[in-house]
Amino acid sequence: MEILSQNRCFGGVQTVVRHRSDVCRCSMTLGVFMPPQAEERPVPALWFLSGLTCTHENAMTKAGLQAHAARHGLALIFPDTSPRGEGVADDDAYDLGQGAGFYVNATQAPWRGHYQMYDYVVKELPALLESEFALNGVHGITGHSMGGHGAITIALRNPDRYRSLSAFAPIVNPTRSDWGRKQLSAYLGDDEAQWAAHDASLLLEEAGWKGDILIDQGAADQFLDLLRPEAMAEALARTRQPSVLRLQPGYDHSYFFVASFGEDHVRWHAERLASA
Amino acid sequence: MEILSQNRCFGGVQTVVRHRSDVCRCSMTLGVFMPPQAEERPVPALWFLSGLTCTHENAMTKAGLQAHAARHGLALIFPDTSPRGEGVADDDAYDLGQGAGFYVNATQAPWRGHYQMYDYVVKELPALLESEFALNGVHGITGHSMGGHGAITIALRNPDRYRSLSAFAPIVNPTRSDWGRKQLSAYLGDDEAQWAAHDASLLLEEAGWKGDILIDQGAADQFLDLLRPEAMAEALARTRQPSVLRLQPGYDHSYFFVASFGEDHVRWHAERLASA
Repeated sequence: MEILSQNRCFGGVQTVVRHRSDVCRCSMTLGVFMPPQAEERPVPALWFLSGLTCTHENAMTKAGLQAHAARHGLALIFPDTSPRGEGVADDDAYDLGQGAGFYVNATQAPWRGHYQMYDYVVKELPALLESEFALNGVHGITGHSMGGHGAITIALRNPDRYRSLSAFAPIVNPTRSDWGRKQLSAYLGDDEAQWAAHDASLLLEEAGWKGDILIDQGAADQFLDLLRPEAMAEALARTRQPSVLRLQPGYDHSYFFVASFGEDHVRWHAERLASA
Repeated sequence: MEILSQNRCFGGVQTVVRHRSDVCRCSMTLGVFMPPQAEERPVPALWFLSGLTCTHENAMTKAGLQAHAARHGLALIFPDTSPRGEGVADDDAYDLGQGAGFYVNATQAPWRGHYQMYDYVVKELPALLESEFALNGVHGITGHSMGGHGAITIALRNPDRYRSLSAFAPIVNPTRSDWGRKQLSAYLGDDEAQWAAHDASLLLEEAGWKGDILIDQGAADQFLDLLRPEAMAEALARTRQPSVLRLQPGYDHSYFFVASFGEDHVRWHAERLASA
């Protein structure tokens, strides 16, 4: 694990590290923010999964989450959104290949050799980070857009690993969206039965979530037809899932939206992770 | 004045506009954040001048100032750091030409045709913005690095135009620094007597400042030898200038540093601008 940069930030430390990923079989870069409280004791971690075209850097520099995490004593983990590098398959489209891993384990060529983002986020990275940073093994997860999809699907499939869950403008029904059908077909093949395990709305109907869920969605989001929040809204209501789904008037899909509600999300997680 | 983007942000609106600058004789882009209070009444403006290599965008997306400005009812103005474009003189070095205007009016070829950033920030832009946005004519000014130099020198030379002043890791003694001598020589010529009007420490000794000044400086800043905070510290002490100069242990020159102390600076300005 190689340290690429370290910056003091809100009394804590924002670190960028690079490491060799066994599951993705390439070098991976991520950001880790450790709050000042970590100097005294191990702290819970809040994972932020990012959206299409993002790297580890977007949320780390633009979402302003460190201010709130420092106050509440949470670590922040900012993984990359796909494997990367010259030997890693890619596509000219912005929404497939590098920068668009969709948080699944690819089973299809040419993707399956490196695109194992589900195992990377759920298994490999937590083990690595718990051995290298002062983390107490208690995890919450959130994300934006494709990363909101990742956060909800990963949490719902791993309720023992994650104690708290939220999302910003998540892709919540990828099996019925052009942000989903193309990628799930490429990574998982044409058998749509395989896709359901990566559709937040379908998963929620099937398995529910043990806790409550906070979702913020900009009502002026330019991608509402691709995100399909109505599918999640219906699933939440039908399953009587404890949840808060907020349609925020005037807000779009940008990081200005994420930053505007970041404080609420960090507090949401802190309240649920602190009682560990 | 053309609107390039508008995003709802902390209940206000973050706008990016492009306009034709008469003094810089080129197209200029800047960011303007209007807080929610501006829907009810005109508000004071806090100017944030950026550093070398920055555009209007860096502070707008990475400093997190909108959260605080929205709470205190301040507009934020994020100008670019130089004229730009194909017809505008430039240099291969990162610290001269485009992205490095140093907030002076150039008198020397090839720069004088466009590099009039002092007049742009002090005169042209305030008049334009006051006519287009709900501003009440009360201004405060801050900035980072080269922009901290700009903020202090501009405020000290125009005490009637600015009511409050602060800076993050400012270049405070450019006449004795490689961040300064090269640029002042290029833009203003070899007569060093012309440079003194753009050296914060020299200006302070000569003219003082009517109010108080807040300066934050990272004690682990990688550019301390170029910023020369000791020159300003000495000038502040010698002139008995009401001021707060904070050396912040562990912090470097990055926007993680700016973001960490942004709340304090916005509050500092809000307290002094609200009593207008």
